[in-house]
This record gives sequence, structure tokens and C-alpha cells, in this order.
Amino acid sequence: MPRVGLLERLKSGRPVIGDGSFVFTLEKRGYVKAGPWTSEAAYQYPDAVRQLSREFVRAGADVVQTFTFYATDDKLQDKGLSGKNVSKDIGNLTSKQINSAACDIAREVADEGDALVCGGISPTPGYIKGIGKEAVQKEFDKQCEVFIEKDVDFLLAEFFGHVEELEWGMEVLKKYEKPVAATMRISTIGDMNGVSTAECAIRMAKSGADVVGINCLFDPENCIKTMKVMKSALNEAGLNPFLMAQPVGFHTHEANEHIDGYMALPEFPFALESRIITRAEAHKFAREAYELGIRYIGGCCGFEPYHIRAIAEELAEERGFRPPGHDKNSLWGKDIAQTNYKIMVHRVTKEYWMNLNPGTGRPEAHILSKLDKIDETE
Amino acid sequence: MPRVGLLERLKSGRPVIGDGSFVFTLEKRGYVKAGPWTSEAAYQYPDAVRQLSREFVRAGADVVQTFTFYATDDKLQDKGLSGKNVSKDIGNLTSKQINSAACDIAREVADEGDALVCGGISPTPGYIKGIGKEAVQKEFDKQCEVFIEKDVDFLLAEFFGHVEELEWGMEVLKKYEKPVAATMRISTIGDMNGVSTAECAIRMAKSGADVVGINCLFDPENCIKTMKVMKSALNEAGLNPFLMAQPVGFHTHEANEHIDGYMALPEFPFALESRIITRAEAHKFAREAYELGIRYIGGCCGFEPYHIRAIAEELAEERGFRPPGHDKNSLWGKDIAQTNYKIMVHRVTKEYWMNLNPGTGRPEAHILSKLDKIDETE
Amino acid sequence: MPRVGLLERLKSGRPVIGDGSFVFTLEKRGYVKAGPWTSEAAYQYPDAVRQLSREFVRAGADVVQTFTFYATDDKLQDKGLSGKNVSKDIGNLTSKQINSAACDIAREVADEGDALVCGGISPTPGYIKGIGKEAVQKEFDKQCEVFIEKDVDFLLAEFFGHVEELEWGMEVLKKYEKPVAATMRISTIGDMNGVSTAECAIRMAKSGADVVGINCLFDPENCIKTMKVMKSALNEAGLNPFLMAQPVGFHTHEANEHIDGYMALPEFPFALESRIITRAEAHKFAREAYELGIRYIGGCCGFEPYHIRAIAEELAEERGFRPPGHDKNSLWGKDIAQTNYKIMVHRVTKEYWMNLNPGTGRPEAHILSKLDKIDETE
Amino acid sequence: MPRVGLLERLKSGRPVIGDGSFVFTLEKRGYVKAGPWTSEAAYQYPDAVRQLSREFVRAGADVVQTFTFYATDDKLQDKGLSGKNVSKDIGNLTSKQINSAACDIAREVADEGDALVCGGISPTPGYIKGIGKEAVQKEFDKQCEVFIEKDVDFLLAEFFGHVEELEWGMEVLKKYEKPVAATMRISTIGDMNGVSTAECAIRMAKSGADVVGINCLFDPENCIKTMKVMKSALNEAGLNPFLMAQPVGFHTHEANEHIDGYMALPEFPFALESRIITRAEAHKFAREAYELGIRYIGGCCGFEPYHIRAIAEELAEERGFRPPGHDKNSLWGKDIAQTNYKIMVHRVTKEYWMNLNPGTGRPEAHILSKLDKIDETE
Repeated sequence: MPRVGLLERLKSGRPVIGDGSFVFTLEKRGYVKAGPWTSEAAYQYPDAVRQLSREFVRAGADVVQTFTFYATDDKLQDKGLSGKNVSKDIGNLTSKQINSAACDIAREVADEGDALVCGGISPTPGYIKGIGKEAVQKEFDKQCEVFIEKDVDFLLAEFFGHVEELEWGMEVLKKYEKPVAATMRISTIGDMNGVSTAECAIRMAKSGADVVGINCLFDPENCIKTMKVMKSALNEAGLNPFLMAQPVGFHTHEANEHIDGYMALPEFPFALESRIITRAEAHKFAREAYELGIRYIGGCCGFEPYHIRAIAEELAEERGFRPPGHDKNSLWGKDIAQTNYKIMVHRVTKEYWMNLNPGTGRPEAHILSKLDKIDETE
Repeated sequence: MPRVGLLERLKSGRPVIGDGSFVFTLEKRGYVKAGPWTSEAAYQYPDAVRQLSREFVRAGADVVQTFTFYATDDKLQDKGLSGKNVSKDIGNLTSKQINSAACDIAREVADEGDALVCGGISPTPGYIKGIGKEAVQKEFDKQCEVFIEKDVDFLLAEFFGHVEELEWGMEVLKKYEKPVAATMRISTIGDMNGVSTAECAIRMAKSGADVVGINCLFDPENCIKTMKVMKSALNEAGLNPFLMAQPVGFHTHEANEHIDGYMALPEFPFALESRIITRAEAHKFAREAYELGIRYIGGCCGFEPYHIRAIAEELAEERGFRPPGHDKNSLWGKDIAQTNYKIMVHRVTKEYWMNLNPGTGRPEAHILSKLDKIDETE
Repeated sequence: MPRVGLLERLKSGRPVIGDGSFVFTLEKRGYVKAGPWTSEAAYQYPDAVRQLSREFVRAGADVVQTFTFYATDDKLQDKGLSGKNVSKDIGNLTSKQINSAACDIAREVADEGDALVCGGISPTPGYIKGIGKEAVQKEFDKQCEVFIEKDVDFLLAEFFGHVEELEWGMEVLKKYEKPVAATMRISTIGDMNGVSTAECAIRMAKSGADVVGINCLFDPENCIKTMKVMKSALNEAGLNPFLMAQPVGFHTHEANEHIDGYMALPEFPFALESRIITRAEAHKFAREAYELGIRYIGGCCGFEPYHIRAIAEELAEERGFRPPGHDKNSLWGKDIAQTNYKIMVHRVTKEYWMNLNPGTGRPEAHILSKLDKIDETE
Repeated sequence: MPRVGLLERLKSGRPVIGDGSFVFTLEKRGYVKAGPWTSEAAYQYPDAVRQLSREFVRAGADVVQTFTFYATDDKLQDKGLSGKNVSKDIGNLTSKQINSAACDIAREVADEGDALVCGGISPTPGYIKGIGKEAVQKEFDKQCEVFIEKDVDFLLAEFFGHVEELEWGMEVLKKYEKPVAATMRISTIGDMNGVSTAECAIRMAKSGADVVGINCLFDPENCIKTMKVMKSALNEAGLNPFLMAQPVGFHTHEANEHIDGYMALPEFPFALESRIITRAEAHKFAREAYELGIRYIGGCCGFEPYHIRAIAEELAEERGFRPPGHDKNSLWGKDIAQTNYKIMVHRVTKEYWMNLNPGTGRPEAHILSKLDKIDETE
């Protein structure tokens, strides 16, 4: 039986749930190195990647993204995973090896459920170095080759900071007979070349993206704020792509008007714990995104399986079913009431958890951090 | 080649690293239900349990604890996993099925590295109900049967709130030819019957435990404080068991003098995110524990693989080797300096991360929560 | 010897220091009632008003504002200080009685030093009720009568929320041969009729104000932000009035984009303590205001004498002298080093106090409050 | 008509209200220098001292303490107010001049109402230097001379850190025919020689004090905690002095187990703003003190007139009358409801203000400060 495609699912009006964070989650599990953030684990430790992918599908994700982040040959060379500086432990790893392995894992897990495989491209170092449109597009082409060979269900250009580079990418992606989604890593302050958020949205849609939105860098609250700006710009321009949102699972308040988003926080990347969103906050995000008309709703860095499950549970009625893993989901602590501990018998309602304002337990902590002042002029 | 046993390792003076949190981590991954907190996933979803166990060993753990928490027949009946109220989805699950499956997973993963398998018993509901010593010991005996049949490397009585029940348990455990460890879930305020922390330590050692300490409920900072009380009581009494510490990976300041510890926090169990300790805090705990003379150092609820890795990295010199997963550990962000992001080039020293006081990014958050006032007299 | 007037002082380039908070300070001293905030104490308790005025001059203020806030006959009737609902304790009090007494106190204290007396008008209830320009101006005229009779040194229209009403006021004030200053209670979001902050500044200057600026409602940090907008708008319009700033002495972060400013905070008016600015923060404000080109620098609600002294000390070099009360000012704790308490011997530098980030000592406190959501549509 | 004395008032069972902070309040008003904290303003600026004293009586105080803090000749010499290092501005000031002036002010203000004049002695530098009992008592004798000549209504030994020195003081005070009160600056951790808090209480009572209690250094919450320890020790010893409490008006949580109390806070003395207690917290303190049986209830550093008024309002029913200044007290904001500002119409109940947990408005602030670690061994 053929799988129902992305656009058919979106046209039905029912929300499509994206998956969550691979690099951050696998870093905590011990399979990704912070700094390079490359995805060679798809080739080196396939069991770990497969397990995480399964958890997202079990949590309710309709999409399994191939774990191919930063897996281009130039990046791999930079990071000492191939070429002259390669570590002796693992020997040369090629982009092709990693991308192929990642596609195989994604397809295997997607087929266990009813999920779609998404192949994603991201910004090239070449764009900023100024190697030009042709050379940049060649990089994208190489990335797509494997996706097409492995027959992914749709393509995604994500994490773009410059709408111009995204447009170049879209020209490449549109050559194949696949649905195409596009997300930028922007807030309300526009892209890295100073193009306004409103104009970014319009140019993304005009470049042919079936689905338009943002991902990474900013928190769910800010994501909703930015998507409102984009939606309203699209409406005024008479454009109607589907909308998509995949924010980070961290509170990034102080950095919401910084072009680097959460990377500008002094806690990035090793002390973000106290910023992690709760499952109640994931519920809230899902509801607000849905009400704004966003129909592709997932997470980026920091979204663990239980956050994706929270999205799927919040939208269970709209989708018509609860996530596969609902057998182990003690929604709002119903099962806590079974406990012998009198002190928690009242913590069993959605209202309790949605209204709880959590404390930190760190007596000398502060709430908001001061961003480092870096002299950007050098 | 026979494996070096627990006591030989401890006698060498080198620290033994315990593993981390199973129920909390697997709840977030979708395989444990909050409230019951039972471990049927060992039988139902062995891949997920195996993967987590591997992550702990890769992080540096010398011990794989069998995932058998609360897996006694009486608990399973209470929770609707067997007996009359059983869920139709899974059918009856017996204690024996779960415990056997858990032992098999632990042994498989331990043998992939050089780790020891630990079989653990925990408090029985019967003790509080007053069914008496004989009946309680029968429950412990049933739990041990599987451990002995599966030939675990050592036994552990953990999470006990009453030193008397722990003594009953020790009588059972001591019958077998295995090293025995014992930990209570206490703070400086003593046990649930009002026995002082100092006396608990003495009675634990006198009951024959080779290793004595605490686990769960309280944060690393408080754990060190309590262990100081216990160590000094043991010294004064001329007792010299090895010391062990497995605190929770959450900041529990407000609850450190509450008998229920972190369960008394309004955030328990669904909004503890902002209390999660950082890897720097795990480093600090490892160092302080080692300096206090504790030689079995691990974690309880909330300790994820990267926290265990932090302990192993902190004590790498004392142990003579870094953890297996050090290939992906960007210690103190050395690899962050590779980045193009100028804003983070200074975040690359141990000093930076050890001194960082993280903010929450939640503008309206508070630092310490008020504990619920529950009328315990009813 | 005739006193040097306001404009001569401003033209010299040296900063003029305003006075601080009367209603808030006298409320805490027991002479003003919160809610009505009327100034009948000038008539009832002249010693208390005189003492506070002296403290401001001793702190370095060049200006003594007459304590005539809300002292118009219509306000007094509303508040039960005259008319049918008058309290039996004090009998009818007329606007004239209060205003005359206030002028006499201000003149007496100003003459003890070298200060100027400022007579101020503020918004009328009639403007919002829509009684029309003529009727509103009649109210202002009545207020000015006493000021002229008592020969104040200059006039001030302050606390205006609508630039239109301020323009009507300026028409009245300009009839007399006195320098005229004008301040609105606005932030960067514009006035209560939606006129932008930039346009407000331009219309204030065009209405004939010699000095233009803002007062009340928002904190020093936000005041600087708003004054930057106003200054830049004035520059672009080729207008060059002197600039003036008198913010509140409370941190109002959460309310900085609320039209009611600090009144929107849940702590207003009885629990603002933890928002009070420190003397170091007053120093910082004075320096930033001066550097922005503001030459009339004072404070509104919450500025106590020691805050005004901090402004005068910060600008002592620019003014050529320290404030009269410097004999009791242990600048930066130089005199703390005399102490026997070793614990504070290092708290003796400007750097220490300017960089100190103060804690609250309230374990369960939060940093930022949630503003009440009021349905403004009713 | 003769005034009713202190003991008669206390025996009636009705609470006696003390006054509040002189040095801290007058420092902010510009008449006391931080560091020396001496009280020469009584002689130099009598109007300022008189005004503050009046405010306390108007707020409800039954007692006017003479403003003679640290006004002994040895202190004055140390601080450069007399002797070789004297400042040329003011010339030599003698202890006698200051003490006499202070007594005259206190008497004048007390007689305007129905208040009692209290003459207080405090610790001598000589005690720590080890000059011996006789020499120390001579200092106290000199201080008392003026009090007796000026016929104060009762005597108080306050701010003592060593119970031994207090006992020496009591021997002196008891020679005169006046009621005598005694307060130490201690917390639950005992005095500066290591005498336990319980024993301090007993020795204070046995030394002949009619009224026993604590003042300064610690916050109201901690004051209640300490007074419970003292009361219970007194009860067990069969002693029944009246109880007295005058804590500081700052939150001192972090320093409550530090022997120097709030002086150990990094914010002392110039950045304590965010620690100031609200009037609601003063109400709470008054109620808790009364319920514990304390009958002399006032404040020390940080208690401004409105805090004393809050105590008097809270105990109005028990005393049979509201404070003189109730005409300007908008109790719980009843008068706020008159306002045009819809946003605050609900802030008009005791419940609202007693339950409000105030925010700081400082986005980057923290809640609890880290105390400086000072090497006390030098």
C-alpha cells in the first residue's frame, strides 16, 4: 500500500508532526561531538541513531529526518573526519558513506510505522566565503544525489541564515519530483544580510517551497511571534504555502533579538539544562502553533522524544489518534494518584501542570543571563 | 579470563563508577510510565533498555544494574500489569519474566565491556503494611532467586527509607556468596522511623554490607553533606566499609530537609527540567565524593549518560583511563574553538564551565519553590 | 544679589539637578495618602514638607518644585478634601490654601541655598472627559495664578500623557514671562492617543518649551532609551530645546511597554521595595543622561534624597562642586574601611558598588512579575 | 498628669510599639555618614532628627529612643569627630553635647504625644580590647549620667554581641530607679563567645532585665525563630521577663547563620534596596511576634516610619486604637479603588497585599547572594 505523501497529509488539514533533536540528544547519549556537531554516528553507531529515530516515531512523529547534518565532504575535512587531519581511530569517512547509512536507518524506522523520510540540506560554508552561486549549488546537488537514490519522501532546506542562499538551494531542490519544504533560522529581526522577516517569508514562498517556516536558534514563544510576522506577510502578498515551525527546546529569551540566537547565550552548549522546556510548554507551543494555522509542527535542538510526544498528545483530537507510545504516557499524572505519597496526589490535572511555574532549586542562580559583549567589528 | 570483582576493584583504591538513571531516562524516551515507574520495558522493549545500558558503559560505568526496579509480583498487580486489572494490550507480565529479561540485557552489555552486573532489591510495600519480618524476607528471597540463577556479580539493597527493613534485607542477601552493597534514601535528618543518619550508617555496616552509602531523593550537594555525617559516624564506631553515593541529578535545595526529598517538590515529576544538574556540576560532585573517600560513585534519577561520562572524565587520572566514549567528548569545549561563531570562542576552558552560573531564560521564573503544605496528620 | 535663572544655568553647559520624589517619599513618612496622592500636607504638615525639601537641596538639587501635585479644586473635591464629602477631621481645604502654602515652603528652602522655585501644572481630569480646550485651559490658568503671585522662578508642565493637552497647557504657560519646561510620561511606545514618541518631542518643542523631556512611569534605563528617540527626532527636525529627564526610582522592566508604566506592576504602590534603584544605579543614570546631552537631570517617584545626592556626586566635576551634604557622604564606602568588620574592608571602591548585582534575600522570590491582564475593552 | 511607665504598659497585656531605624534612615536623608554611623546629627541637624522622631510617634511608636548611637567619647575620637583628627568643618564634638541634644529632642517629641523616652547603651570597643570589667563599666556609667540627668523614662542595653559584656552593663543600669530592657544582636547560633542562644536568654533575665530580647542584624523571620528559642529556654528555667524584638527591615536569609548577620551580605550597606521588607511583611512580623507573646515590638535598621505604622495598624485592635497618622494611611489600598486606573482596582484587599510575592524588575538579578569568603584566621 503506497504511503500518503506530505502534501496530501497537509491538505487534509490534520497537523503533521515533525521529529526532534538529533545532534543535541545524541551528544548527551555520547555519539555526537559538541563543536563539530557532525553526524558520522549514522555510519559509526547505527544502533544509537536507529533507537532515537524509533523513539520519535513512537512519540508520534510523522517524519523521520535523515541524520545527515553537516555531512558534506568539505565539513568532514574541516572537522578532521577525512583528509589529512583524520583521526587514526576511525579512518576516512566520506559524505557518501554517512548519508547512505543515514538514509537506510531513516527508511527502516519510517517503514516500521507510517512515517515519511525527509532528506535535508543546510547552508554551505562556501556561501559566506563567496564562492558563488554555481559552486554553492554544486554542493547542494551532491547532497541531493543520495537522497534521490535512496528515494526519500520529501526534501527540506533548513537552518538557512541568508534567504539568498536558500533561494539558490530551492532552485536545486525543485529539479526533483518531490515536495519541498524550507525553513530559515530567523527571528523577528530578519536574516543575516538584513532582509526583513516579512520579505524572507515572501521570497521563500516565491522560490517554490510548498511549506515555509523557521527552525532552530529561538524558543517556542519567539517562534510563534516570528511565524505571525511571516504569516501576515504571506497573506498580504496573496501567497498560501503550508506553514512549518521547529524551534529549539530551550528558553532563549535573552537572545531572541540576537542574530545567533541561543548560541549567543553564555550557557551554550554545555549548561543549557535550566532552559529546557517542560512537556507542558511543548503542549502550549503545539496548541498555539496549530491555532496560528501551522500544520507542520516539530522541534529542533533540545526537543527530546517526550517533547514530541507532548505535541502529538496535545493534537491527538485534531489528528484523530494518540501517538503509538501512549501506553507509557501518564498524561498529566493520572497515574500519580496511585501513589502512596500524599504529597503529590493533587498533581494530576492538566491545569496543575500547565500553570506550574517551575523553580530551579539553585539558591544562588539568576533568571536571565547577560550576553557576552563581543566586538563584532574585528 | 575471569572478570575482576567489585571488592577487588574497590580495594585497589581506584574509584568504581556506577551507572545512572533508568526509570527517569526511559520515561523521557517513552518506555516507562510515570507514577507506576515499573520496569516491564526490560521485557517489552529490550532494545531501548539495551541501548541505554550501553550508553552508560560507553560513558564509563563499571556497573550495569539490572533494570528490575519495582518488578515484584505484588507491585505489578498493584499497577495493573498482572492480575485482574491487567491491561488487555500486553497481557499478564510476571516478575520472573521481567527480572530474567533484565538480567540477560545487563549481562550482554556488561560483557561487551568490562563491567559488572548488579542485582538490586528495594523496599517492599509489606514492610509498611506490617506483614512482619518473615513475610518481607520472603519477598526479597524471590527477587534474589533470579539474580543468583543469572549469576549477577554483586547484590545491592537500595532506596531503603527504614534501616530496620534494610537490615532484614541484608540478612537475606548475605546468604549468597556475593559482595553486598547497601544504600538508603536519606538526608541528614535520619530515616523514616526517626533513626539518626549516623546510627543508620552504623547499623548498615554492622548488618554486613561491604559498601555503605545513600542513593536517590537528594541532590549531589546534599549527598556529600550526608555522607560526611555517615563517614564520621562510621569512623567513630571503628567501622570501615567502602563508601558509595548515587544522588539524583536534580537540584533539590528546598526539599533537602523533607523526608520525601525531591518528590516533595511541586515540579516532581513533570517539570524538573530547570533543576537538572549540568555536566560541570557532575564533575564537581565526582571530585568532592572522591576527596571524601567515596569509591563507588554513580547517579540515580536524572543522571543521564553524559553525567556519568562527566564523573568518569573527572576521575580519569585516578582510574588510569578515560571512558570508552571519550571519542565524542568535546571536553570543556576544546572543539568549540573550531567554530565560526566568534561569540563562543572563549567558552573552551574547564574554568569557564565550572564557574558558570546558568540562567533560566524564563523571565517570570522564580529560583526556589514553595513546598506544598500537606496535612500529614490525616 | 539676583539669582541666576534656569536658562542661564542651562546655557552655561553645566548640568542642573532636579529634586526627587515628594508624594512617594511623604507617603512613607506618613503625610500623603496613597490613592488620592494629593498634596494637602503642604498646608497641614508644613514641617514635614519643608524638611524633605531641605534634604533635596542639601543633596544637591538646584530646583525646589512646589508641592502642589493634584492640588486643583476639582481633584480635591473628588478626593473628599473639600465639598460635600469632606472629612470632618480637617474641614474644607481649597486649592488656593494648599498652593500658597506650598509656594511659601519652596521659596523659603530655595532661598536658604541657591536653588530655583519651580511651579508645575499637570493633566486635568477634564481633558479626558472632553470638556474642551477652553475649559481645560481655565484650569491651568487657575493653577498659574498662584505661581505668578508667589513669583516662582520657572514653570513646568509635567506628567502629561497626551501631547495635545500639553500643547494647550503650553499656550497658557507661555503667556507669562517665565522660562517653561515640559515633560511627558511616555516611553518609546508613544502617547495615550497613539502619537509617536518622536512626534511628541517635536510638538513639545514647537509649542514653545525651552526644556523638553520625560518624567515618571518608567525606570532610568528606559528613560535613557526614550530620550534617545526624542533627541534624534528633535535633531532631524532642526529643533534644539534643552533636554530634561526625571524617571522613577524603581526598576520597571516588565511595564516598559505598557502605557501605564509602573502603575501596571502588581507591586504598585505598596510592594515596590525590591524595585528601588541603588545609589550606584543613580550614578549610572546621571552619567548616561549627561553623556546623551541631557542637562536637567532629576528624579520622580521613588527618588529619595540619597538618589539625588548620587546624581550630584556623579556630576560634581562637571558642576564644579560637590553637593552641600557631602559632609555626610561616605562616597563608595571609603569610611567603611575604618570598620572593625573584616568582612567588608573590600567594599570601598566605586568599581565594587557599580558592578555589584544585588540579591533579594527572599528565597522564594521571582525576578520579573507577570502584569495583570485587564480587559481594557469594557 | 504623670505618664504611664513602660512596665505598667507591658503589664496591661497591650503591646508596646518601639520606634524604627535612625542611622540608616538618616543616612538616606543625608545626615549620618555610613561607616562611622555616629549620631552627631542630634547636635548638628536637630530639625532632621526631630522630624524623624515625630514620624515614628505619628506612626504609632510608644517609645522615642534617644539618638545617641555610638556617641561615646572614644568612638567620637576614633571617627575624627573630636581629638587630633577632627574635621575643621565642625570642630570638636563631645559625647556630652550630642547626648544632651539627643535627650532634649526625644523628650520634646515624646511629650507632644504619649510616648516614653528610652536611653540606650551599646557595646564598648574596650570589651574586645580586654580593658576589663571596671573600665568597661566606667564607659557605661558616663553614658548613663546624661540619661539620668535628662530623666529618661527607661534604660536599654542593646546590640550586645557578648552576653558577658551585657551582664556588666546590666550591673550599671540596675543602679538607677528605672525599668531596664536588654537586647542582643544574636541569631540561633549563639553569641560571639559561643554562648548558646538559650543560655544568653537565661543570663539576660538573671542579670535583672525586665524586658529581654534581640535587635538588629537579622530579618523579622529569623527574629521570630530566635525568639522562640529564647522563650522556650526562659520558660524551662522558670523565668518570665517581658519579651522584646527589634529586627532589621531587610531580608537577610543568606546571612542568618553568620555571626555578623546582614553586615556579611555583599550588599551592605549601599545596595540593600531589594532586600527592604514591605509593609505587608511588617504586618506579618507584628502578628507573629504578638502571637509568640512578645509585647515590645519595634524595628532596627531599615524600619522606616511606614513599617512602624504597619505594626501599629496590625495591632490596632489589641491596643485599642489606630496610630495617630492613620489619617493618611490608605490601609490595603482602599483608596486606590477611587482611581481612574482600571489596572489596579483589584489591589485593595489585605489578602492581595499579604499574598503578593514581589518581583524585582531587574532582569539579570539573582535571588540569593553568595557571601564573601573571608579568611577569618588571619
